[in-house]
Amino acid sequence: MATTVGRVLVYGGKGALGSACVSFFKTKNYWVGSIDLAPNEQADANILVKVDATWKDQESQVLGEMDSLLGGNKLDGVFCVAGGWAGGNAASKDFVKNADLMWKQSVWTSAISASVASKHLKEGGVLTLTGAMPALEGTPGMIGYGMAKAAVHQLVKSLACDKGGMPANTLTAAILPVTLDTPMNRKFMSEADFSTWTSLEFVTGLFDKWLNGSERPANGSLMKLVTKDNVTDVSAV
Amino acid sequence: MATTVGRVLVYGGKGALGSACVSFFKTKNYWVGSIDLAPNEQADANILVKVDATWKDQESQVLGEMDSLLGGNKLDGVFCVAGGWAGGNAASKDFVKNADLMWKQSVWTSAISASVASKHLKEGGVLTLTGAMPALEGTPGMIGYGMAKAAVHQLVKSLACDKGGMPANTLTAAILPVTLDTPMNRKFMSEADFSTWTSLEFVTGLFDKWLNGSERPANGSLMKLVTKDNVTDVSAV
Repeated sequence: MATTVGRVLVYGGKGALGSACVSFFKTKNYWVGSIDLAPNEQADANILVKVDATWKDQESQVLGEMDSLLGGNKLDGVFCVAGGWAGGNAASKDFVKNADLMWKQSVWTSAISASVASKHLKEGGVLTLTGAMPALEGTPGMIGYGMAKAAVHQLVKSLACDKGGMPANTLTAAILPVTLDTPMNRKFMSEADFSTWTSLEFVTGLFDKWLNGSERPANGSLMKLVTKDNVTDVSAV
Repeated sequence: MATTVGRVLVYGGKGALGSACVSFFKTKNYWVGSIDLAPNEQADANILVKVDATWKDQESQVLGEMDSLLGGNKLDGVFCVAGGWAGGNAASKDFVKNADLMWKQSVWTSAISASVASKHLKEGGVLTLTGAMPALEGTPGMIGYGMAKAAVHQLVKSLACDKGGMPANTLTAAILPVTLDTPMNRKFMSEADFSTWTSLEFVTGLFDKWLNGSERPANGSLMKLVTKDNVTDVSAV
């Protein structure tokens, strides 16, 4: 541990972007914690949440294990990249079922990340959540997804307020990617133009910059990631 | 039933605004259904949801009972006025507990109302949901409330889209009151300036206008209700 430069937590550390984050921050000599349904063997510590536990119980479990893992040390960054996708409009048979899943995957994880950050993030640290460009407007074909992401966007604004509960000088921001270049997306959208997809390396590099105080956007920003000809532009909504 | 002029459903029909809606539409000779945790004796029919049932189970129960109650007849309006309030920032002990409650009280009810409307509302009918002005910005002192209301606002936009699942020519809109003039609010904010509070009669009158095709805002509107000197101004956000 002598060479550890700091500590970060990745919520959703076993997903495509989450695994890229864990791997990246390990190469940078950070202590890396992962929270997910399954362990990421590259992480220094794993917190495994139970998919059928309540929101409150998941929060209690995560807070309890974080206390033990950190032993009074502080986190430099909390990166919530958990999420998922399911469609359906109000007339769909699976409307509520999918809306429930979207809420759990995006909002439960984001809120628990905020709860961890309020207690364990150092002053001047970084908390990132994951939003979605489409949810800035109506999303008729994926109503549950849109509601969940709209809630995440509003959560970012609340956390950035003076009395939102974050440590002093925290940067809270959301990334709003269009399509991330992941193996699953390549598999299911194999005919797409990959040059408009955002690479995972770009995202981990962006998190690293923010962690190091470089190119930080205004607190509470929703940052669009728009990729064209393999070049990604980052701009506040 | 010979004099029934139409059928409306009030979600949250036992609350202060809900009871005012049930009472108002009864005097106008509508068939009125109420959904709530407790029955409203003035309503023609009551659907009682169980507070500990899942979102999906509440939806299934409500859709099943609505099928039986309507027997093929259509609704003219669905008014979701269910909701509640709880505070807390990300550092609060009750952050997730309260966020969970807010989600259930505002978003579960709004989504189930949309599901009912997609199946039982007549063409050109009205669906209203209940938003909140503060959730247009960050809400650091009531984060769970803000997230839930932001989700409701985005839901309204999705439902107003062409393929959101609503019957043709439905008006879907949200009311965004500041403070409603209810007995509970008078009790807990007895020192406030009541002339800036919106009367329940104003809201029921507004719903009645929209139901009758009068002064309808654009589909998908979030309508602020701002009261000053006992006069309420209605305007789109």
